[in-house]
Amino acid sequence: MDMMDIVKPTFVISESRVRENIRRMMEKADASNALLRPHFKTHQSLEVGKIYRDMGINSITVSSIDMALEFAEEGWDDITIAFPVNIRQIADLNDLTRRISLHLLVESLETITFLSSHLEYPAGIWIGLDVGYHRTGVDVEDHDTIVQLAEAILRSDKLKLRGVLTHAGHSYTNDQEVKTTIFTTARQKLTQLKHSLAQQGIEVEISYGDTPTCSVFSDFSDFNEIRPGNFAFYDLTQLSFGSCSEGEISVALACPVVAIHHKENKIVVHGGGVHFSKDKLEVDSTSLYGYLIGHNEELWQDIDPENYLFSLSQDHGLVRVSAELLSQIQVGDILYFYPVHSCMTANLMKSNTLLID
Amino acid sequence: MDMMDIVKPTFVISESRVRENIRRMMEKADASNALLRPHFKTHQSLEVGKIYRDMGINSITVSSIDMALEFAEEGWDDITIAFPVNIRQIADLNDLTRRISLHLLVESLETITFLSSHLEYPAGIWIGLDVGYHRTGVDVEDHDTIVQLAEAILRSDKLKLRGVLTHAGHSYTNDQEVKTTIFTTARQKLTQLKHSLAQQGIEVEISYGDTPTCSVFSDFSDFNEIRPGNFAFYDLTQLSFGSCSEGEISVALACPVVAIHHKENKIVVHGGGVHFSKDKLEVDSTSLYGYLIGHNEELWQDIDPENYLFSLSQDHGLVRVSAELLSQIQVGDILYFYPVHSCMTANLMKSNTLLID
Repeated sequence: MDMMDIVKPTFVISESRVRENIRRMMEKADASNALLRPHFKTHQSLEVGKIYRDMGINSITVSSIDMALEFAEEGWDDITIAFPVNIRQIADLNDLTRRISLHLLVESLETITFLSSHLEYPAGIWIGLDVGYHRTGVDVEDHDTIVQLAEAILRSDKLKLRGVLTHAGHSYTNDQEVKTTIFTTARQKLTQLKHSLAQQGIEVEISYGDTPTCSVFSDFSDFNEIRPGNFAFYDLTQLSFGSCSEGEISVALACPVVAIHHKENKIVVHGGGVHFSKDKLEVDSTSLYGYLIGHNEELWQDIDPENYLFSLSQDHGLVRVSAELLSQIQVGDILYFYPVHSCMTANLMKSNTLLID
Repeated sequence: MDMMDIVKPTFVISESRVRENIRRMMEKADASNALLRPHFKTHQSLEVGKIYRDMGINSITVSSIDMALEFAEEGWDDITIAFPVNIRQIADLNDLTRRISLHLLVESLETITFLSSHLEYPAGIWIGLDVGYHRTGVDVEDHDTIVQLAEAILRSDKLKLRGVLTHAGHSYTNDQEVKTTIFTTARQKLTQLKHSLAQQGIEVEISYGDTPTCSVFSDFSDFNEIRPGNFAFYDLTQLSFGSCSEGEISVALACPVVAIHHKENKIVVHGGGVHFSKDKLEVDSTSLYGYLIGHNEELWQDIDPENYLFSLSQDHGLVRVSAELLSQIQVGDILYFYPVHSCMTANLMKSNTLLID
């Protein structure tokens, strides 16, 4: 199948752009002597997984036990579930630890106690830290609690302490100064913690992840591994943060034109919230759900702020374009859009993707 | 499987509430001598489809050709695709028209011309009208265009003119006066159009749909059919519009607790944008993604505005609850939430639902 065979909403992935994004991140990780353990929640795709594997990636991150099961089935045997353990799925965890090298995220004694008595095979354990995002995790400066958790892990014969893991989600900003402060502060607090734990005889590694800082900075030598995910695809949100250039966004949603209302300058496409997700971007107090960057055989054109998705309902997308472009578009044509949040779009479009050069 | 076997994010559907919602809508349609042709895009569920069939529903609405294929496979043989025809999927349309009684929505001459020459078997055709929502469709007052489209349909041997179809999406408001005006205006304009077309020898039926007006009003005698969908489930958005009472919302998303941060009064659940969708509700300038209405064995409790989902990322949900409730919740517990938009949540949770009494 190629682009002109597209008949319905289809998630188009540029293999060359994905490879280039991965190559650049691998180079930076290598130069810092850190492991790149990419987050697979972005693509959730066996095809993109194969590109990673082909490029030498063997260790991955996922965000749920079900996603770990899916990739384990495809032969991935070194997986970190970077989400606080859902102890209700202990049967699945035992299935996974029996088969692969599995690493889990904990942030409470209750979970450690539960795993110590219910895990049947060993698992690597990371302590989840909050370095300022305030979503979840133990405060990076709360050394007492961290020591308490580490010691509980060390007492168990099934739990193998790996170290501390964090996601600096508050780096999702377009203010480069703020991003620099976040990165340097997080790095400083994490290395302080590492030294403080070492003085108490507790050796830990540091796992750090998030696409904005991993995209903008280069020195990860204080970390043992980095876990960005979105960088393989990027999207309009990351573009707005300065994480990437337009030409590095490697995915587009193809949508068939089903109606045109010339008087209102409005094109209706089959492509709605069940395809894009409802994530939106605010640009100059206008909400938008995607920028138009292709028409029929033409793909990866430059963004023109005049041409964008201005409204989404469940299945309908409403598009506004320049008068010149409007006159060239017909019912039955295909329009391509950069998504606002590629992770959410990829999740919705899992069953209908097209990998092109 | 029952509620206590839930181990991961699960979309729980109350069969008794669904049946009661359907029964009430069927009664109103019957009393108005109108056909209830429910929209299946809300649930997209073969199980809920079976409830409908068991209650005597044989004619349905869907929002895409793929959804029509899915339900045709399950034996549904009278389906309207209430979305402007995607002519790129002509092969699928021919597959459907060969097998079932299919009804399509058109709003341009180009589409009619294409279907006239490419459809291999007959299909019913509805002309899509805009009665004020301004998403898509021909303006209901543009009688000239409507006549032109109707005549083009009548000239084709494959296209069988059914009538005019509209979705009054602008009735999604909590202002009951506005809703009354929308409903009575739409009804008046549609019946005027019908009489005007009859005078020109063109007989049309009227198909009307949307959950808010179909929920609040009772007299549909001017319509041949009504196509509400969301009413089988309802949700917090419809509750805010006054379409339903709390006790009529028939679905909840079950989420396991994975972390508790007592100091910040914050519970972390496995349940994020890939489960709920990112649709949110603004209540007194607070954004929320769901109200908590159950804990472990207890489900369908009254909404308490203190207990709600205040933040969602891809997999994480952050919950704020009263101090009393916080002290009763533990890691590994299950919390249940009414969703903001059940259609979007059902779409994401298709592969993990639980039907209970």
